[in-house]
Amino acid sequence: MEKIGCDESHAQQLADILITSDYRGHYSHGIQRLHIYVQDVASGACDKNGTPKILKQKGSTAWVDGANLLGPVVGNFCIKLAVEKAREFGIGWVVANNSNHFGIAGWYAMHAMNQGMVGMAFTNTSPCVFPTRSAQKSLGSNPICMAAPATKGDNFFLDMASTTVAYGKIEVAEKRGATHIPNGWGADQNGVETNDPQVVLGGGGLQPLGGQEATGGYKGTGLCMMVEIMCGIMAGSAFGKSIRQWQTTDQTADLGQCFVAIDPECFAPGFAERLQSFLDETRNLEPLNEEQPVLVAGDPERGHMAMCDELDGIVYKKSQVLHLLKLADNLDVAMFKAKRLNDILACEGNESD
Amino acid sequence: MEKIGCDESHAQQLADILITSDYRGHYSHGIQRLHIYVQDVASGACDKNGTPKILKQKGSTAWVDGANLLGPVVGNFCIKLAVEKAREFGIGWVVANNSNHFGIAGWYAMHAMNQGMVGMAFTNTSPCVFPTRSAQKSLGSNPICMAAPATKGDNFFLDMASTTVAYGKIEVAEKRGATHIPNGWGADQNGVETNDPQVVLGGGGLQPLGGQEATGGYKGTGLCMMVEIMCGIMAGSAFGKSIRQWQTTDQTADLGQCFVAIDPECFAPGFAERLQSFLDETRNLEPLNEEQPVLVAGDPERGHMAMCDELDGIVYKKSQVLHLLKLADNLDVAMFKAKRLNDILACEGNESD
Repeated sequence: MEKIGCDESHAQQLADILITSDYRGHYSHGIQRLHIYVQDVASGACDKNGTPKILKQKGSTAWVDGANLLGPVVGNFCIKLAVEKAREFGIGWVVANNSNHFGIAGWYAMHAMNQGMVGMAFTNTSPCVFPTRSAQKSLGSNPICMAAPATKGDNFFLDMASTTVAYGKIEVAEKRGATHIPNGWGADQNGVETNDPQVVLGGGGLQPLGGQEATGGYKGTGLCMMVEIMCGIMAGSAFGKSIRQWQTTDQTADLGQCFVAIDPECFAPGFAERLQSFLDETRNLEPLNEEQPVLVAGDPERGHMAMCDELDGIVYKKSQVLHLLKLADNLDVAMFKAKRLNDILACEGNESD
Repeated sequence: MEKIGCDESHAQQLADILITSDYRGHYSHGIQRLHIYVQDVASGACDKNGTPKILKQKGSTAWVDGANLLGPVVGNFCIKLAVEKAREFGIGWVVANNSNHFGIAGWYAMHAMNQGMVGMAFTNTSPCVFPTRSAQKSLGSNPICMAAPATKGDNFFLDMASTTVAYGKIEVAEKRGATHIPNGWGADQNGVETNDPQVVLGGGGLQPLGGQEATGGYKGTGLCMMVEIMCGIMAGSAFGKSIRQWQTTDQTADLGQCFVAIDPECFAPGFAERLQSFLDETRNLEPLNEEQPVLVAGDPERGHMAMCDELDGIVYKKSQVLHLLKLADNLDVAMFKAKRLNDILACEGNESD
């Protein structure tokens, strides 16, 4: 990122979130997306220097101009502001326009959580979802995210697309040779539900959480729209159908994003202890299958992070490392020394996710 | 309600919300539930006089003791307080413990919306949902609700249980003679998915939005838990498994509820106009089936209200009116004059929903 002229602090902020995504096991939002941020900045569609600006503020709220900077730069600015406001007024609710793809929403919620707050973050995204009954894609996979601190580092950590699955899950299924995906995942280019992953990936789209109308897809549609209201509609950014297509750079993304911090001490004392009881009672529910314990949001990521800690590093597939190397090479960045590179290229690693 | 000693204003507040539910077409939350509120108050499980108390407040936030009053009394108190705080600080976020069933969440969100705010309301409820992988019910059908004002009285009005469907929908299917319900709706008493409505209604339970794990049910589970965190965990009320069973009166409900008002004028100017564009672009999407236009949250209810307006009254089934008459009779309330009563009893109305 610095090689293409990005402010050093901006580059660092992007690196932090991409690596954290990988550490949490969300490789789809990690370093394998670095080239997209590079494209955005190199093409001039995303700005590489500057600072977000507060356009308006009152009490708990602020409206921020993201100044078309990298999403993580905008997001970090906004969630820090939200935490400050929450300290003073109990809540901070900061909405930004003129932003770019901000990576995992959980990064921002986590920042608030690390300050003892309940954190939430939302963003609109490029249209990839067929609303219930629609033959056209018009909504993003708009994530809903909440992180809340329990005791001893435990927490509730929900970070979900408003669709049944993310594109990445369908890509993984297809790469593994699956020819059949469950109902409710995706639709063909006309919005008709399909079980063929290649049809979804070849110009089709996603279904909202719930899938078809009979199985509650209209609720997922409602959630996608609720997030868009907190983002694009409040922020005065692009919204809905008008957001540029993912990975295009002929116009700015002008995404809308919303960052919330809530101080739980403003309500009943003992929030963290009650949350811990709730997490524990949920995990301790009798499972349908003894080998599949009941999980709470964040448990799969905790498992992945523990695995990385055990190995003292983040596990990457060879293809992911090669992607970085190729990108570094294209940009003439001396990233790995030759010996290390050769070691990697010689490695016959497992290519499955 | 007055007959059993309920404060007149409390009774009126309950009546207003029940009738509004029916007017919006949500009969499951309307006057046909009056007997449950009567039971709660008559048994002493819910208090009939008093006022909610603010226990703590700071900036945008307040923590309220619902004083074990009727849910609508607590909810109206809290959303009014939230709107006041939103006027001063941009947001109002009010959390109550010691509350009771508050009817449709939309009523409270609507109050904020009628003041030009974006309103949200949440409540925890008795455990009726099997979390993903669980053989035990531990979560409520915890609703998510947002009402946001567009132009000329139009609005976005989402009021949804975090489950694929509400119990009422399964009851209606079963009453209509259906022997098969879609996947993702419900489970038997052991948490195993079933397509038999009688099995769900006979001691089974609901599935979270998304249904099974493969179709995103863990996201619905996450949403149920997110709402519980904003309600029971923040409020310090009963939560999760410990909430009393629905329609029991041997202990107080001690529900936790959360009420939010957000002043959209704190962010980009033109919120209502942008929201209108978003609603219009969504409704105008090309539909999969010409006879089923794309709807936005609130459109089905708008259709029902328009029908009632056309008829100059709310349409009730004979069984619903008989339910009221029987209740009135039990409580020795002279509700209908004999002639009118006879007219109703003689009516051979359609009993389907």
